Amino acid sequence: MIKAGINGFGTIGRRVATALSLQDDIQVIGIAKNSPDYVSKIASTRFNLYVPDAEKLVEFEKAGLKPKGTFEDLMRDSDIIIDCTPEGMGKQNLGKYKKGNVSAIFQGGEEKEVAEASFNSYANFDESIGKKFVRVVSCNTTGLARTLSPLASMFGIERIDATLIRRATDQNDSRKGPINAVEPSLKIPSHHAEDLRTVMGPVEVDTIAIKVPTTLMHVHVVQAVLKKNAEKKDILDAWENRRRIMLVSGKDGRSSTAQLMDMARELGRDRSDLYEIPVWKESITVTGNKVRYIQAVHQESDVIPENVDAVRAMLKMNSSRDSIEKTDRSLGIKGTVV
Amino acid sequence: MIKAGINGFGTIGRRVATALSLQDDIQVIGIAKNSPDYVSKIASTRFNLYVPDAEKLVEFEKAGLKPKGTFEDLMRDSDIIIDCTPEGMGKQNLGKYKKGNVSAIFQGGEEKEVAEASFNSYANFDESIGKKFVRVVSCNTTGLARTLSPLASMFGIERIDATLIRRATDQNDSRKGPINAVEPSLKIPSHHAEDLRTVMGPVEVDTIAIKVPTTLMHVHVVQAVLKKNAEKKDILDAWENRRRIMLVSGKDGRSSTAQLMDMARELGRDRSDLYEIPVWKESITVTGNKVRYIQAVHQESDVIPENVDAVRAMLKMNSSRDSIEKTDRSLGIKGTVV
Repeated sequence: MIKAGINGFGTIGRRVATALSLQDDIQVIGIAKNSPDYVSKIASTRFNLYVPDAEKLVEFEKAGLKPKGTFEDLMRDSDIIIDCTPEGMGKQNLGKYKKGNVSAIFQGGEEKEVAEASFNSYANFDESIGKKFVRVVSCNTTGLARTLSPLASMFGIERIDATLIRRATDQNDSRKGPINAVEPSLKIPSHHAEDLRTVMGPVEVDTIAIKVPTTLMHVHVVQAVLKKNAEKKDILDAWENRRRIMLVSGKDGRSSTAQLMDMARELGRDRSDLYEIPVWKESITVTGNKVRYIQAVHQESDVIPENVDAVRAMLKMNSSRDSIEKTDRSLGIKGTVV
Repeated sequence: MIKAGINGFGTIGRRVATALSLQDDIQVIGIAKNSPDYVSKIASTRFNLYVPDAEKLVEFEKAGLKPKGTFEDLMRDSDIIIDCTPEGMGKQNLGKYKKGNVSAIFQGGEEKEVAEASFNSYANFDESIGKKFVRVVSCNTTGLARTLSPLASMFGIERIDATLIRRATDQNDSRKGPINAVEPSLKIPSHHAEDLRTVMGPVEVDTIAIKVPTTLMHVHVVQAVLKKNAEKKDILDAWENRRRIMLVSGKDGRSSTAQLMDMARELGRDRSDLYEIPVWKESITVTGNKVRYIQAVHQESDVIPENVDAVRAMLKMNSSRDSIEKTDRSLGIKGTVV
């Protein structure tokens, strides 16, 4: 049984903790939290809490919580730490992990240099086998890699162009904007292009990111030029056995991210999450070797299966095929069933 | 075992179906649906589907679904129908229920005249005992009745003034607005005042409703003039044993509806719902006999416990106390525990 600790319990950390606790080969030792807020209080009913230092122990105890120990204790008792701290903090934590001689997974907010490899289950699982420090790429890059890498395997890809219509902030955030403006990222290509190459290799790719006032999901408009001609059914074939890609249709009512998130609630998913990347069937358009499609990304949860798989890759627990299957089964990811 | 059928499977119907299926004294016979959309497809894995007529049977079968029968069959096999059809349709359905000799619960979108009694568990459970047609008041009225009726019992209420800051639409809707405007209801008082009297009796009440661009929750600013002086701790005492009222605090991070909905997700609630009415502790302000406070209402789910209790009242299954306790236990409503 592999022992895992979670550092940080925001959008990603809390979901990683739940997902890992559902695995039969991974034990969650506990989570590191900085403040005794409502999230700590709820989390304490399911997970051991760890705090940065002795001073924080007192603060948590005053709030009626009983941390199991400090972050040093969590590192000592864990084989691997999943670092889910805010963007840029992972880099600062790397020294601690090295000193504590513990493996660590970082999230996509970190620069690629923080880790020995960047990770996506479909694109490059094997590159992380046996590695001590791995970075799971961001929600947007994960979404792109998930639908594009099966196309790369089957047809080869010459060039990718993607426009990312990004959600402004997550649902539990009431401070960030924009609330009524469309905000283009003026750096072209956006960082996603470079990030996609960290998992898909040296492909020609251009990305443009535009922030819009919504909290539900990102939407990607993707165009890929393949190395050979294809037809729509070939694209569907390439995605058919990939359970983490979900083909949806506007015809049965799923015409926007509002209904996709509603579907996740109806599916009874933990936290109403949608781990899969939904692709609108009607949008898949193939002309010669050019494929276009529109997909959505539930930014809070699409990287969660990848975090679970990354643990198994790094600690040489399973092949990519077996790990993906175990992860999908535990999270209820069944492919395009609805 | 009481047999219940659900007519309509929108925001309320789907939640009523799930909640009733969790009761050990109620069996869900099935749900009536009009179109074979994604909601029907997901629902069909848990519930028997019924359709309006033979023509619809064919349409559903073409979409790969196998309805159990028509609405006539559902009525015949049920002791009670919970009508969760869109606003105004309940009135049209009343004739069918009378003809089918089946009890029915209507939702708050209907006029009070559709039923023999209007219902709120804390305010007037007993008035619906043995009734054949009952209306559960709307989400906003339920929210007001839930926090005000314990104050009415304990202190008496001379007058209520409430400003309802209403969500624009539900999360799964991508058609309605406003998306960037504040839209006051120009009828003063809004219909909620009259509606509140249907469950609290002839109290002096004035309500003003303002629609704002959000999908998460309503927020109410409430002022009640009591029949005697009180202190803040007396108000807290009046609410203490009412599990469906949840005292929350901005101090531990729950400062807006965004965090309240996040809390519901962390609590692992079905569909990430929040059945309780959260009241911000800091906002409770008492001056002499005047009480002010701010509360929030998860419009999609706060009436769900009431629908379950209404079944038990109408069919004389339990006392209000026992029904409320059974319902709360089944839905994980524990009072102010976080």
